[in-house]
Amino acid sequence: MAEAKLKIRISLGMQTAMGPGKADLLEAIQRCGSISAAAKEMKMSYRRAWELVDAMNHCFAQPLVHSVPGGGHGSGAHVTETGLQVLKSYRDLESRVQSACEKELQGITDHLAKDRD
Amino acid sequence: MAEAKLKIRISLGMQTAMGPGKADLLEAIQRCGSISAAAKEMKMSYRRAWELVDAMNHCFAQPLVHSVPGGGHGSGAHVTETGLQVLKSYRDLESRVQSACEKELQGITDHLAKDRD
Repeated sequence: MAEAKLKIRISLGMQTAMGPGKADLLEAIQRCGSISAAAKEMKMSYRRAWELVDAMNHCFAQPLVHSVPGGGHGSGAHVTETGLQVLKSYRDLESRVQSACEKELQGITDHLAKDRD
Repeated sequence: MAEAKLKIRISLGMQTAMGPGKADLLEAIQRCGSISAAAKEMKMSYRRAWELVDAMNHCFAQPLVHSVPGGGHGSGAHVTETGLQVLKSYRDLESRVQSACEKELQGITDHLAKDRD
């Protein structure tokens, strides 16, 4: 049976500034210390991960990810202070919606098909 | 300057059961009385509108849209009782998130680029 999931995105014009995939990627970069290792962990191409990072960095006033390319000493990537703040607010938002909007969410999920796979 | 928007989706497996586009389409069908007129109003192909309706109807235990094809007397489409309930819960959810999660939303939007177009 398929699971119902709540997905929250903050869009800016045509772009998604923050959403489930970008938040997961930020966490993977923080854990892995590089965009390529994060991409590998998320079973995503390096190009795709780089595009998501680039999109995030352009949507915010300060970059969310700082990367030093090259593969040599000091190379890699980390989530900036702004990135950590935005990520925390996004995860807090997800939790808060689940707790504060239970009635409204149930008004939708109660009607979902029970036998979908 | 691009406007920041909150977008909420309820997904079921790989499908989006309810989201901004589907909610707008339900309202357009209710207003227009047919999928084709709703598609035209939303500047969307009939095929695309039909696919969105079909996806919604399959995600929920009861169809959200009832349509009588043919173009003749009695043909057209309307949002079912279940559809109206789900739509109301979704719009209530959007409002509730804005009011109940102001702090978390600001923790993201305060960092967005101000000069994006």
